[in-house]
Amino acid sequence: MGGFVRLRQYENSLCKGRLGSSLFCAPMMQPFCEQECSELEPLKLAMLLFEDFELLDVTGPLEILGRLPELFTITLIGCELKPISSVQGVSIMPSTPMLEESRVDLLMVPGGRGTRTLMNDEALIDWLMPTGLRRRLSPLCTGAYLLAKAHLLDGYRATTNKRALEWAQEVAPNVIFEPRARWVKDRDRWTSSGVAAEIDMTLTLVAHLAGESQAQEVASVIEYKWDDDPDHDPFAKDDSRKGLQSSPAIVTAFRSRLKPNHQEYEVIAEDLERLARTQPGLRFFKTYQA
Amino acid sequence: MGGFVRLRQYENSLCKGRLGSSLFCAPMMQPFCEQECSELEPLKLAMLLFEDFELLDVTGPLEILGRLPELFTITLIGCELKPISSVQGVSIMPSTPMLEESRVDLLMVPGGRGTRTLMNDEALIDWLMPTGLRRRLSPLCTGAYLLAKAHLLDGYRATTNKRALEWAQEVAPNVIFEPRARWVKDRDRWTSSGVAAEIDMTLTLVAHLAGESQAQEVASVIEYKWDDDPDHDPFAKDDSRKGLQSSPAIVTAFRSRLKPNHQEYEVIAEDLERLARTQPGLRFFKTYQA
Repeated sequence: MGGFVRLRQYENSLCKGRLGSSLFCAPMMQPFCEQECSELEPLKLAMLLFEDFELLDVTGPLEILGRLPELFTITLIGCELKPISSVQGVSIMPSTPMLEESRVDLLMVPGGRGTRTLMNDEALIDWLMPTGLRRRLSPLCTGAYLLAKAHLLDGYRATTNKRALEWAQEVAPNVIFEPRARWVKDRDRWTSSGVAAEIDMTLTLVAHLAGESQAQEVASVIEYKWDDDPDHDPFAKDDSRKGLQSSPAIVTAFRSRLKPNHQEYEVIAEDLERLARTQPGLRFFKTYQA
Repeated sequence: MGGFVRLRQYENSLCKGRLGSSLFCAPMMQPFCEQECSELEPLKLAMLLFEDFELLDVTGPLEILGRLPELFTITLIGCELKPISSVQGVSIMPSTPMLEESRVDLLMVPGGRGTRTLMNDEALIDWLMPTGLRRRLSPLCTGAYLLAKAHLLDGYRATTNKRALEWAQEVAPNVIFEPRARWVKDRDRWTSSGVAAEIDMTLTLVAHLAGESQAQEVASVIEYKWDDDPDHDPFAKDDSRKGLQSSPAIVTAFRSRLKPNHQEYEVIAEDLERLARTQPGLRFFKTYQA
């Protein structure tokens, strides 16, 4: 009974998404909005594990999403089925080897020291590309680098740990990194700032998918003082606007994204307008709109 | 160089403790304050793992303490050396079997559904008693039940998850549970409320041991909005004073603790006075003082 109510709420919330289900839902769940609630399955959440991942990047979201088995099933994906160690030396067992995992509704990629090594791991980047392109993505902290490397954030607004922001912009020039944000939701891509920001972002993700009251309930059970304002970011540097610069690569990426699917135009245009209002100094909006 | 400076700060902070090192330091570290800084070893932190532990109870503190290898070494203690699953289905590998672990400077006991079963695990309770009695303890969330069962919180003020408070008071009548607190530090026992409160408490523990700036630095790196006020507790119920009642058992426990070490009298008296100021309706203070 409780599950039915929750799923109904969940469906309604999903149906409100401007982009509909095409970028989000796995094939077996489409057409999402036309199904009966009772036929709906939980979303398949996959968390990527790798050596030297950041512990809380993985466990913060899982503490929350693992409390909602009606909404999510959790898969921990590793290169091999052996314990994988965090930066802090805590080893977590993956449940599935990377290459065997194909159906993913929501892919989460944590940050951590290990991302630097993985930037050169072609097998992983190749796996991310087909996995990520059709799915809702949530890179956490420095996990954004890996998705940027797989071109899954090209032309998207994103954020990452404030202490790695300059490096991020350097290695991922096609991504619009926002230097002052706890997290950024740009269509189906959610990115978050430093480690603890994931917890706020994940609760917001739950609110987005399943309703505000569901997220409030989880926050209350775990006694977490949820801050749902993505702009309340005391960790941004004072010169936080420095990182946002006009980039020909971003313009090119935006233009290229218009070609395969003209329906995206409206969404991108809205995003640009919104950005232009808050960041009037950015020339690329004008270039784009001309 | 950095390590030396940090350890100097750490030593000074420890020496300030009213109770001195007898309840805190492991034998090999005593007399703590007379040693040269260069000889100091990191504190040995042991986190207890058991089936159905609460994920963030374990990983929140470890995310923080694992970033300070000069101050802490981390041991994950399990009954056996096999992956141990959290309530959320995330399996962590212990590093040491329970019965082989003897030297512990700081023991942390997480909460979670599994604590209910472990309340009847005599081997665990027996192990906790000699381990815990000589060490600084930090039960997290419902982990307090296990330490209460081993009589390690008798006569201490403590707190736990707000949704389990009534049950806690029932099964641990010798513990003074505070219904409105993010965490409680009573001499060498630290207890925290619901899952996320551990993160605030652990940062405060770091500040206590290694200085405020060290804790602020970690909070900044992980971008956590640390609230260091243990009384700022929005999750306490409105009838939060209801749980605190006079209890003859508490009075007895307090009295018995005076016998072995008269020096403790002053500390207990101070605690009672402070409690009496905030909770004037509690009769047991008068009984005690009479």
